[in-house]
Amino acid sequence: MIWTQEGRPLLILNENASFRMAILTEYDGTDFVGFQRQNNGRSVQQVLEEVLAAIYGCPVLIYGCSRTDSGVHARGHVSHANVPFLIPPDKLPLAMNSLLPEDVTVRAAALVTDAFHARFHCLGKEYVYRIWNASIRTSIDRRYVAHVPGHLNIEAMREAAKQLEGEHNFSAFCAQGGRPVNPVRNMESILVVTYEDSPMIEIIVRGKSFLYNMVRILAGTIVYAGQGKLDPAEISAILNGQDRRLSGKTMPAKGLTLEKVFYHPDPF
Amino acid sequence: MIWTQEGRPLLILNENASFRMAILTEYDGTDFVGFQRQNNGRSVQQVLEEVLAAIYGCPVLIYGCSRTDSGVHARGHVSHANVPFLIPPDKLPLAMNSLLPEDVTVRAAALVTDAFHARFHCLGKEYVYRIWNASIRTSIDRRYVAHVPGHLNIEAMREAAKQLEGEHNFSAFCAQGGRPVNPVRNMESILVVTYEDSPMIEIIVRGKSFLYNMVRILAGTIVYAGQGKLDPAEISAILNGQDRRLSGKTMPAKGLTLEKVFYHPDPF
Repeated sequence: MIWTQEGRPLLILNENASFRMAILTEYDGTDFVGFQRQNNGRSVQQVLEEVLAAIYGCPVLIYGCSRTDSGVHARGHVSHANVPFLIPPDKLPLAMNSLLPEDVTVRAAALVTDAFHARFHCLGKEYVYRIWNASIRTSIDRRYVAHVPGHLNIEAMREAAKQLEGEHNFSAFCAQGGRPVNPVRNMESILVVTYEDSPMIEIIVRGKSFLYNMVRILAGTIVYAGQGKLDPAEISAILNGQDRRLSGKTMPAKGLTLEKVFYHPDPF
Repeated sequence: MIWTQEGRPLLILNENASFRMAILTEYDGTDFVGFQRQNNGRSVQQVLEEVLAAIYGCPVLIYGCSRTDSGVHARGHVSHANVPFLIPPDKLPLAMNSLLPEDVTVRAAALVTDAFHARFHCLGKEYVYRIWNASIRTSIDRRYVAHVPGHLNIEAMREAAKQLEGEHNFSAFCAQGGRPVNPVRNMESILVVTYEDSPMIEIIVRGKSFLYNMVRILAGTIVYAGQGKLDPAEISAILNGQDRRLSGKTMPAKGLTLEKVFYHPDPF
């Protein structure tokens, strides 16, 4: 390692040298326009870059694994940045957190090779969509759940989730305007989890990559199955129809959290 | 019951008649000065009374089971109010929630006799103090936990908690300036609960009533035991000393939630 015995950063005199850091970030997306910089508001990227610039004394660019929509949260977002000198990876989160607003926390940092790229090397992501299924809303968990009153048939939701697993053309599950060149995606697993003594329902989705708004539309479609608005047996026709109007509604951003991003090897 | 078959409220023509409702409320205390009305800011009582006045068309006073300090949360606060006509108790929470800000939710309402008093008839309360015991803070749970980095000896915390259970003179656990006529209280149980895969530690305190800031000082003293700043065997001397300076620090309000209030019979 290349820092001093006292744990102080070692300045690198060669001005072209740089170190690549992977950064694991948690954030409450409520008051952000999303991860990526936008002209219309506060982004997580901007907040992280401002803090890195203050610490390293020069502009530092951050590359995220995922943009995440406005209002979406993350517990395990990963990004990378080239920095001009080394601060020990176990010290960098504490230095950054002392300057970051309280709705963003750097959970860990790691020195990675220059070949590492947070987006291109990502092997998969786990999102959780949280539903508060009770007639009465919640104040304490309000920032992280979508309130869905009324009976939900959990078995129908699980059957719909099962039909959506695997490799499909997900054109019917992509926000209009966001149609990609290749709409085929592979959902490794989609689980519907319930808890005793809590009205919380979690839809846990794992896949390598996702179309625009896809997890929120998958969640909306699974909720429709739970409400009896569609039969899980219709899912295959919805997939084949490749028409956004056939699937369920786009659930609110606030219920969605990016929980984990997978790499091999895991940098943290 | 005294409402119409269509579920509309039945107006009582005798202007002296009134109905007493018990109201179960959840709130995120972050942006409140506490439950009780104050001159210096927004209170839960004020917000509830404004909504009841809008619904019933006249001033309605609310009597709470507990004041709760500024910044303290509640999942099961109970209050009562006299209202001039009956709205079905299962409809009142929905009517109130549609007008309430999102950080306050009425979870349930019940018609009670005029003898019921939320504060005087309360048999006990359960508070939970939540500690985030990790070197890195949390953004997602930040509103409801106190961040305590560094090692905590859970066994020492449990031993301290055990020493604090039962009936004692809790003068050493009362905020200065809040010294009551009778400082004897009975802590029915004080539990320290940990979770696998989470840095959350919960201190669950049950008792009939509490002194000013008492649960936060109990939590601070138990944390001191976990940090090795005091030996659980010293607790009895701290109790006997009846001096606030001997006990642990007052933990931040944000970690404290009033979870349950007990009555017999339970009105809800």
